[in-house]
Amino acid sequence: MSFAIPQQRLGVLMVVSGPSGTGKTTLCRKLCGEGEAVFSVSCTTRAPRPGEVDGKDYFFLSDEDFVARIERGEFFEHAHVHGRRYGTLKSYVIDNLSRGIDVLMDIDVQGAQQVRTCEDEIIQRCLVEVFVLPPSVEELKQRLSGRGTESSESLDLRLGNAIAEMKHWPDYDYALVSGTRELDYARFKSLLISQRMRAELLNKE
Amino acid sequence: MSFAIPQQRLGVLMVVSGPSGTGKTTLCRKLCGEGEAVFSVSCTTRAPRPGEVDGKDYFFLSDEDFVARIERGEFFEHAHVHGRRYGTLKSYVIDNLSRGIDVLMDIDVQGAQQVRTCEDEIIQRCLVEVFVLPPSVEELKQRLSGRGTESSESLDLRLGNAIAEMKHWPDYDYALVSGTRELDYARFKSLLISQRMRAELLNKE
Repeated sequence: MSFAIPQQRLGVLMVVSGPSGTGKTTLCRKLCGEGEAVFSVSCTTRAPRPGEVDGKDYFFLSDEDFVARIERGEFFEHAHVHGRRYGTLKSYVIDNLSRGIDVLMDIDVQGAQQVRTCEDEIIQRCLVEVFVLPPSVEELKQRLSGRGTESSESLDLRLGNAIAEMKHWPDYDYALVSGTRELDYARFKSLLISQRMRAELLNKE
Repeated sequence: MSFAIPQQRLGVLMVVSGPSGTGKTTLCRKLCGEGEAVFSVSCTTRAPRPGEVDGKDYFFLSDEDFVARIERGEFFEHAHVHGRRYGTLKSYVIDNLSRGIDVLMDIDVQGAQQVRTCEDEIIQRCLVEVFVLPPSVEELKQRLSGRGTESSESLDLRLGNAIAEMKHWPDYDYALVSGTRELDYARFKSLLISQRMRAELLNKE
């Protein structure tokens, strides 16, 4: 009988966006800390800070090397922020996905937009995009002002930026509206667990 | 600021298929038993068995009524099996989904095919399809023969039917390859939990 149950799968590429104050980074760190997925290691042209390890925190590249890689189309998302370059290498992500390792990318809406329009077949098969939202705008404002160290103008600016970013949530596959820390994590993890069962990731021979 | 976090959602319509011997029915019953979703109540023209309750086990309809409803396009999947009719009313499913109630349908590949091609917008927004597979064909054979009460011809027939059905798993969104009972349920539940966060189900005004 020429039928076999699929025994192997590609990894899940989980792109996570959302403003700070939603607990997004904590969710990502915890999931990777439990060994459920690997964090995507980005490249940067900024200098390593004390304690940062090349290949773990970032791949530290020279500006020349970075630009050459852009020209060769090696990045599938990159940005230029305050004179420093940041980007994710396709090869790094694809190598992991091909081996069935799930990859988490914590990136902003512009980065997610670049990943979404990437034409690589394996990326498109493995990609799932999640936006983490606060329970309400009022609650986000309170969380952002929690540190209490900044002027109301600075707070208004940060809140305005967060709202501009949040308007993009309908472009994502999933939106996690933050509630309690425990519930958020259970729901976040369920996203990864369930994505592993996506038919597209399973071998079909 | 004209931005609001989504507070309401449509229900998830989770269609579940797979051969017997995979634990599929147990998974569905447990999820509904925990109050996470409601089982889709089908219509039938067969007579109620002792203890069966109209509107709970089935909606019991006369053949005349059933046929009239087919003609009015009220079913989004129906079948004629051994002279009896079975089907699911669109109105029943859509009413639940509109109120944010998740609906589980345990149907075969033909029924799922009918749901998949249904043109109703709310059905298409809410639909997710899951196929439950055994760990291996060999294991399925053992599970099917576990009762030990049938001839090898009858077993071969059932196994052949199961394989014919299983060949349709790539048409589904997700495939759950059965392992242990506990793990299967955790993964099955994670599918529903995560689908509730699908951006398409959230209000976008």
